[in-house]
Amino acid sequence: MDRVEIIERLKTNLHGRDFLLTWEKSEDELRMILGVADILKEMRNRNISTRVFDSGLAISNFRDKSTRTRFSFASASNMLGLAVQDLDEEKSQISHGETVRETANMISFLSDFIGIRDDMYLGEGNKYMRQVGTALDDGFANGVLPVRPGIVNLQCDMDHPTQVMADLLHLTHEFGSLEALRGKKLVMSWAYSPSYGKPLSVPQGVIALMTRFGLNVELAYPEGYDLIPEIVDVARNNAAKSGGSFTIKHSMAEAMRGADIVYPKSWAPFHIMEQRTQLLKSGDKKLLNELEQTCLANNARHKDWEYNEEMRRLTSKSDALYLHCLPADISGESCAQGEVSAETFERYRIKTYLEAGYKPYIIAAMMLANRFEDTAGLMKKLLDRKQERVTSVLKL
Amino acid sequence: MDRVEIIERLKTNLHGRDFLLTWEKSEDELRMILGVADILKEMRNRNISTRVFDSGLAISNFRDKSTRTRFSFASASNMLGLAVQDLDEEKSQISHGETVRETANMISFLSDFIGIRDDMYLGEGNKYMRQVGTALDDGFANGVLPVRPGIVNLQCDMDHPTQVMADLLHLTHEFGSLEALRGKKLVMSWAYSPSYGKPLSVPQGVIALMTRFGLNVELAYPEGYDLIPEIVDVARNNAAKSGGSFTIKHSMAEAMRGADIVYPKSWAPFHIMEQRTQLLKSGDKKLLNELEQTCLANNARHKDWEYNEEMRRLTSKSDALYLHCLPADISGESCAQGEVSAETFERYRIKTYLEAGYKPYIIAAMMLANRFEDTAGLMKKLLDRKQERVTSVLKL
Amino acid sequence: MDRVEIIERLKTNLHGRDFLLTWEKSEDELRMILGVADILKEMRNRNISTRVFDSGLAISNFRDKSTRTRFSFASASNMLGLAVQDLDEEKSQISHGETVRETANMISFLSDFIGIRDDMYLGEGNKYMRQVGTALDDGFANGVLPVRPGIVNLQCDMDHPTQVMADLLHLTHEFGSLEALRGKKLVMSWAYSPSYGKPLSVPQGVIALMTRFGLNVELAYPEGYDLIPEIVDVARNNAAKSGGSFTIKHSMAEAMRGADIVYPKSWAPFHIMEQRTQLLKSGDKKLLNELEQTCLANNARHKDWEYNEEMRRLTSKSDALYLHCLPADISGESCAQGEVSAETFERYRIKTYLEAGYKPYIIAAMMLANRFEDTAGLMKKLLDRKQERVTSVLKL
Repeated sequence: MDRVEIIERLKTNLHGRDFLLTWEKSEDELRMILGVADILKEMRNRNISTRVFDSGLAISNFRDKSTRTRFSFASASNMLGLAVQDLDEEKSQISHGETVRETANMISFLSDFIGIRDDMYLGEGNKYMRQVGTALDDGFANGVLPVRPGIVNLQCDMDHPTQVMADLLHLTHEFGSLEALRGKKLVMSWAYSPSYGKPLSVPQGVIALMTRFGLNVELAYPEGYDLIPEIVDVARNNAAKSGGSFTIKHSMAEAMRGADIVYPKSWAPFHIMEQRTQLLKSGDKKLLNELEQTCLANNARHKDWEYNEEMRRLTSKSDALYLHCLPADISGESCAQGEVSAETFERYRIKTYLEAGYKPYIIAAMMLANRFEDTAGLMKKLLDRKQERVTSVLKL
Repeated sequence: MDRVEIIERLKTNLHGRDFLLTWEKSEDELRMILGVADILKEMRNRNISTRVFDSGLAISNFRDKSTRTRFSFASASNMLGLAVQDLDEEKSQISHGETVRETANMISFLSDFIGIRDDMYLGEGNKYMRQVGTALDDGFANGVLPVRPGIVNLQCDMDHPTQVMADLLHLTHEFGSLEALRGKKLVMSWAYSPSYGKPLSVPQGVIALMTRFGLNVELAYPEGYDLIPEIVDVARNNAAKSGGSFTIKHSMAEAMRGADIVYPKSWAPFHIMEQRTQLLKSGDKKLLNELEQTCLANNARHKDWEYNEEMRRLTSKSDALYLHCLPADISGESCAQGEVSAETFERYRIKTYLEAGYKPYIIAAMMLANRFEDTAGLMKKLLDRKQERVTSVLKL
Repeated sequence: MDRVEIIERLKTNLHGRDFLLTWEKSEDELRMILGVADILKEMRNRNISTRVFDSGLAISNFRDKSTRTRFSFASASNMLGLAVQDLDEEKSQISHGETVRETANMISFLSDFIGIRDDMYLGEGNKYMRQVGTALDDGFANGVLPVRPGIVNLQCDMDHPTQVMADLLHLTHEFGSLEALRGKKLVMSWAYSPSYGKPLSVPQGVIALMTRFGLNVELAYPEGYDLIPEIVDVARNNAAKSGGSFTIKHSMAEAMRGADIVYPKSWAPFHIMEQRTQLLKSGDKKLLNELEQTCLANNARHKDWEYNEEMRRLTSKSDALYLHCLPADISGESCAQGEVSAETFERYRIKTYLEAGYKPYIIAAMMLANRFEDTAGLMKKLLDRKQERVTSVLKL
């Protein structure tokens, strides 16, 4: 299989390393994850087992509600032979160092991976994952843990790497290859939503990742809806290095002109999320409520930031590929007015399902690359092993 | 094994088809499910593995509380090698078309089966299952899903096929065979319960299924406690075709006379359930409460509808086989007065446990028949494979 | 492997028997559990699969919150090839005989083990486990269940056998062997905690178990903080038989003098727990609240019962091994003042993690010994089988 040959040539250092931010990984490392995910998906389609663990646990630690990512993590774990064990915490608790250190070890005696979602508090989610990592390092070094469980970031305050890597894999299939994306215009645009406080991780993850591969990325949002400045800098630097470009616009229509790929999605302004984090920590419900009202009022001034037929017609061949992490706020369906018109969403609905469908494989690829030094060798071995996932009736 | 030979001769079209209502299945198809369930149970007893999936997910979607069916579904999934992943929704939500379409796909990227319980709303539960099915068909046709997950109805507003098929399998064991049931008198009787709003699915499922095999089925209930008319028609037509009979009585004692099998169980009247569904949709708590009070008052006028020693003595040889889906409302135990007297229940208690014990195998059989074109061939292969479920120590 | 030879010589009668109290087991039987746990741990470290079930369920029935034991049970089950299915009950319910009898069977049709935690009510937890056991015996004898699931006590009102056996295994590793513990002084001491109503199971379990192997056990607590008298008698008798000793002191400092092992931990007085159980049953919230206030006030008079540097310096070589079931109430960290000073806890923190790390293996050993008549033979077979837990890439 050519795909194995391609990943064999990559120089990577993923073994034993957590996957926390795409911009901490080299281009080859990102290609490795995409390549392994692709092979895993093909194996599934051909009824070849991807099971490498005869037993073992994958811990899911969701500090925020989730259905889609929860199922993706469960699917990835199951595909490799691991059972998922949920860690249920008090939902609103901001963890303390000591507790994290102990809990991380207590849940890991026989665990192979921990998937963490912690996107509620700006400045906290990614930090928490690293605290868990340090605790696991400590436990492993001291003989407490037989293996150092790998950590997969299932969304934090900074990045949503499993989502945006799935988005990217989807793009390579839609456009033919990673190379074919070079020079394509991708618009990551804010869009209106009647809800408030949506995380920044997706837009940040998108601009930081898509600028790695020579795309021309435009970030569009109404004045004031800034992302974390340091991550915008990451995107800017990536673009400079990869030969693409990165620009910011404050008009949706202007940004959409000539776009090949569009990602219209709501988020809360960075400075609001900072205030919100402070208020959540102090537990001031009155001020939190006031902040929410102010925010919703602000959002309401930008109801024209809807992706619809008019916007679509501005894009390349009137047919830019529409991306969304789902669920989208669809005008007239899931809300009175939202991020996208029903007509436009329906045009690309199946494509968004295909996009989402890559996530389980991306997560599984991150797990394998973390655990096996020679991931390409492993894939070869699994393909040669030809173990059936579902027993076939015909042959014995 | 003779059992395999028997199912080999059956003409069925279960492959790739959801199991939603027994009356959508042919007699041969029902026999296939019973036969496969029997073989699976024997394999378990003989420590032969029934595992056909090396990995894979079975999604459980319980829109109403459940312990027994939840465990049966978990057991069936595990027996075949699948891990259960729960889909937790907001409990009271009546789903919207768009949401179902998307969610059905999002949870199914690597799923093999979805078990659904949705029995709260008349006219909704079975419809919801079909909406999920259509969404899965759509996802599979569009390449979103690598396989089309099969749907198992774990109880809806119309039928409770896994329960009544387990009941039927139990009857074949108690009476020797399916053929031995021909001409036997089965009474599906309403019984008093201090609780309100019990679903119609069990009595409807019982009369629709048991009339398929030449039994003489009597449905007994106080005036006003009707079931869904269309399903009563199904039972009437089935009886006409199968050579059995179907009659309705409004006296428990009269119905019990000469019965070989009795199924005394409470349910809410059809027209009340319809009102209740409307009120639940509109969310009118005051009217809901009034309806409940009226209902309980109505029920209380029929406290004499208790299955007890007096009733039992009216049955064939004073020893009709007592069936119940459990838990029963037992007078003096789980409630002051209920569906059955403690003394009478105790006579048949162990038999009701045996009855319940068939359900995991019935569910597993439905899954296998959905997934494998040649189910009989599969069973043969598994029996020949002789893989141990539990490692035996003696031989290597 | 010498370890297998050692367990081969033991005379045990663990097959088919629940593990409910350590003092119902012979010395050889306890040695068997320790030995099997050790071998399982070594197998894990050497990537040898311990999977003996190709499929099967382990039911977890936690009637009180738990993270650590929940994960230990999940790990043990997974290690053997079983999937965990949670039984969620109403949290505060004190079960009735009839319900237990039925539920025990309904969840067990395809279950291999049931792990139960029920430590809330004095006189209830262990009794409940035996009721479940009787119900399972009944179901198995009547052909309802294909196997009689084994019960593992995951903490009751009397004992916490999986915890104290893990503690003991940890001690054998720290001191070299079970024999090396003979003559060592172990202090099970009450310690101050700002919380109320902590169960008695750990101190009771510790004194009852550690007196079996020739240790000199001292139980220390402020006047009034007695344990269940019958279990104190068990400890006293054990010490007499094993050649160790058992004494009670009412001064922490006095007890600590010359100690080799210390276990400072809070608990509620026996007579308070009895009152509390009565009040919980009657549901009298006002009196419960009053009892809590009285208790907390009582506790507060013993804030000097903190294990700290001063206490540590009284112990043998100023370095007694510190044990705790975790989480400890650490002064200045998890509470203002608690069971142990931060400085002293930190000295032994990693050791307490190692201690906790034995629990999954102890649980798995209890399961195997329950299920397999020739546990030593099984361990030999698994070691010879050399099945990899994680696929290795290098060899095919």
